[in-house]
Amino acid sequence: MEQESSFLDRVLKIVKDESAAHIPLVQFKHPKELEVILHDDIDISEPVSDQDLEQSVRKVLHYSVKTNKSTFRNQLYGGTDPYGLAGAWIAEAFNTSQYTYEVAPVFTLIENKMLDHILKLFGFPDGDGIFSPGGSLSMLYALVAARYKAFPEVKAKGIRNLPEMVIYSSEGSHYSIMKAAHWLGFGTESVRRIKCNQCGQMLTDELEKAMTEDLSNNKVPIMVNGTAGTTVLGAIDNLEEVARICSKYNVWMHVDACWGGSLILSQKYRMKLKGIEQANSISWNPHKMAGAPLQCSLFLLKEKGLLHEANAAAAQYLFQQDKFYDVRYDTGDKSIQCGRKIDAFKLWMIWKARGDIGLNHMTDHVMELAEFCMETVAQKVGFRLVSAPLQCPNVCFWYIPTFMRHQKEDVKWWDLMHKITPKIKEILMTSSRLMVAYSPLRDHKNFFRLAFTFHPRLDEKEIIDMLQAIEDCGEMLSLDIL
Amino acid sequence: MEQESSFLDRVLKIVKDESAAHIPLVQFKHPKELEVILHDDIDISEPVSDQDLEQSVRKVLHYSVKTNKSTFRNQLYGGTDPYGLAGAWIAEAFNTSQYTYEVAPVFTLIENKMLDHILKLFGFPDGDGIFSPGGSLSMLYALVAARYKAFPEVKAKGIRNLPEMVIYSSEGSHYSIMKAAHWLGFGTESVRRIKCNQCGQMLTDELEKAMTEDLSNNKVPIMVNGTAGTTVLGAIDNLEEVARICSKYNVWMHVDACWGGSLILSQKYRMKLKGIEQANSISWNPHKMAGAPLQCSLFLLKEKGLLHEANAAAAQYLFQQDKFYDVRYDTGDKSIQCGRKIDAFKLWMIWKARGDIGLNHMTDHVMELAEFCMETVAQKVGFRLVSAPLQCPNVCFWYIPTFMRHQKEDVKWWDLMHKITPKIKEILMTSSRLMVAYSPLRDHKNFFRLAFTFHPRLDEKEIIDMLQAIEDCGEMLSLDIL
Repeated sequence: MEQESSFLDRVLKIVKDESAAHIPLVQFKHPKELEVILHDDIDISEPVSDQDLEQSVRKVLHYSVKTNKSTFRNQLYGGTDPYGLAGAWIAEAFNTSQYTYEVAPVFTLIENKMLDHILKLFGFPDGDGIFSPGGSLSMLYALVAARYKAFPEVKAKGIRNLPEMVIYSSEGSHYSIMKAAHWLGFGTESVRRIKCNQCGQMLTDELEKAMTEDLSNNKVPIMVNGTAGTTVLGAIDNLEEVARICSKYNVWMHVDACWGGSLILSQKYRMKLKGIEQANSISWNPHKMAGAPLQCSLFLLKEKGLLHEANAAAAQYLFQQDKFYDVRYDTGDKSIQCGRKIDAFKLWMIWKARGDIGLNHMTDHVMELAEFCMETVAQKVGFRLVSAPLQCPNVCFWYIPTFMRHQKEDVKWWDLMHKITPKIKEILMTSSRLMVAYSPLRDHKNFFRLAFTFHPRLDEKEIIDMLQAIEDCGEMLSLDIL
Repeated sequence: MEQESSFLDRVLKIVKDESAAHIPLVQFKHPKELEVILHDDIDISEPVSDQDLEQSVRKVLHYSVKTNKSTFRNQLYGGTDPYGLAGAWIAEAFNTSQYTYEVAPVFTLIENKMLDHILKLFGFPDGDGIFSPGGSLSMLYALVAARYKAFPEVKAKGIRNLPEMVIYSSEGSHYSIMKAAHWLGFGTESVRRIKCNQCGQMLTDELEKAMTEDLSNNKVPIMVNGTAGTTVLGAIDNLEEVARICSKYNVWMHVDACWGGSLILSQKYRMKLKGIEQANSISWNPHKMAGAPLQCSLFLLKEKGLLHEANAAAAQYLFQQDKFYDVRYDTGDKSIQCGRKIDAFKLWMIWKARGDIGLNHMTDHVMELAEFCMETVAQKVGFRLVSAPLQCPNVCFWYIPTFMRHQKEDVKWWDLMHKITPKIKEILMTSSRLMVAYSPLRDHKNFFRLAFTFHPRLDEKEIIDMLQAIEDCGEMLSLDIL
């Protein structure tokens, strides 16, 4: 045991060494290569000494991506807030499940505090909520709540004898709506993917048209999933207009604010979310822009009590009603999970250290940087924006290498551009200069997405360097290597 | 930033101080009291200095339950494996999502390695699987897979036009089956709760009877959920008999081995799981008995490919098919989650350090201790076993205080016993001597459950002390304080 717990002492050093400033972002190896390189390290057939374990762990980390680098721009998450990481470490060390007050007394109060504070921020002062293991789970919570509100008998009877239900979500919204529609028994065909404008916002006229058509066919609109921050363009739907339609037809309004919800932290930028306070439910992932360690997702509802009512199973062995304390503090039966990590604690650590004021500044900084990036891209030779103006801190663009410029941009040209973007990404990544996302979207061929997060804190110089890296690698290309 | 990351250095010291040997298991305060005591500490209205943050964190931990103590026997999890904790800390520091090879190259290989190794252990050499955020989610995965296998059209079309489906699960099985039936649109009434014998095992005659009855009513049995280790009694269903019935009627067999699955680690005790290799799917939570930090749950399937086929949504922005590496290593589209923690890594750390051989010994030790506990309880005056022989390391019993002995055990007497058990628990907990689970079960009034886990490693003396604590606190009771 002496030996065992001493390994924990090594961890801080290993982590510091392997994430030091001089360590490259990524040392890319193809899967089959990496399997060979790490064969003995990954092997678990025989127990190893602490020394050997440390060596293997160091090799594992050597070939892992350093998501805390400023050049990790591959996803909508990145470096963690150091206070959040401290919270995560403490949470892991105290290994606590969130279901009952008796095992998690303080963490229960902390979850309540975080929910209260965040519900008020979003304009749900009398609301309710829960931390869930990610935005896709929060989406499931939303659809379950919407369905239960409309047809409480669904809990016991299922959906077989209910009218046909339909769900509305923009074509730019996150794919979790499709997985949720499958899992919950609606089927993916029950999702109406509403077209977007060029900025990626749901066309609300199309939404209303689809809804009235469904209603005239005796289908029941069960939920509209508005998006505040689409994955690729960072688009924010016109939430006031979505709210008007939902209110008119008495349909549950959910806002997937997993990405864009962090704008609520900024006095200046929260107006972009206007209308969100009219929603019935909201999901927000502080593990994205705000840098809480994975996983930290909130599902929030305007109506108190519904979450418990919809989800409770009243397990006798866990949620006994004859406990010696006030069992209303046992919050776990609101959850689809039984054991549930204390994800609220790491967010509390961040908030306690930084306050509303610190988070406000961080949000403003990220948005200002993204503005700077967008302006720079707009002016820079060879770069072309996909969409403007800025909504969330996503900047999407093509880089057009010199040999591609001043040509007719016909189908063949765009097909080539479609191949150029991933090729530039490959060079950027294999040279460890930058990991950047790319995607096609509707009729747009593959383009880059640079998205910005609170951590690590970037400056304008770093953004210029990233764009320069894209240009440098783009200029390495020629027709014959494509 | 200097200041920020230095907070991480304090964490190890805080964690060590607050989980030192002399620190009590719990300093219980009622919710309203605790809200007052910690009011300023939990408050997040203004940012605080690192010093103040540290003080507040220490107070939070002071009033938190120390789940790593041997006297924490309140749940089916407890202390963590130090190597697992080291893995969790590294995982948090490297903040990585498991969805694609490009962001998680080594962690992808490690997840593959762990799945391969564990699939073989359970007798699914060509199987597939995924790590999920807990047993309830794994249950959802199972039902989704079973339903998709029977009716692949469910993914697009939903379940409205499918025949009425029914699910079988014992009355002692985990409540997550009810939540899953609700969420997935079957409804809780679609679950047949099959009666159990006195040892808590599903009565398979009753299972077959229920199934033939449903079949004759044109209902479609979609899944049987066998249990290997029920939550309270630790009962293991007769899995061979469950398999025979599932095979006869061509029904998906799932085994919820979230608790008992750890017996697979022992050459001696794995025979208790006989028949599990005939299942179509299995769930196992190494975060329970085996001491992986929360959350670490596996969902395993015998059939390769099905998980991907059932769940894939082929998001263009994440699972691009034109990447420069072999995209078969992008495993995330098998998942209901998008972002997904690298839970495999902490389990890998445990396995790498201990090997099959170490885990074998730990399992044997836990089972031997539980045997010792059961024998002691059986012989000890005032104690009475609820169920024997031992299946999983759960020992369930009543403590009958002296003033209750040698009386007629009529309804009134048992009603009193029903109150005595929670009252003893209250005294045990408020005096910080022991946190132990209690539960009623069917016609059994409230009784205790002592369940044993790998960490911390206990000895017989500690078990005797726990029973003594129960006796001591039980003897403090008298009729007038009930």
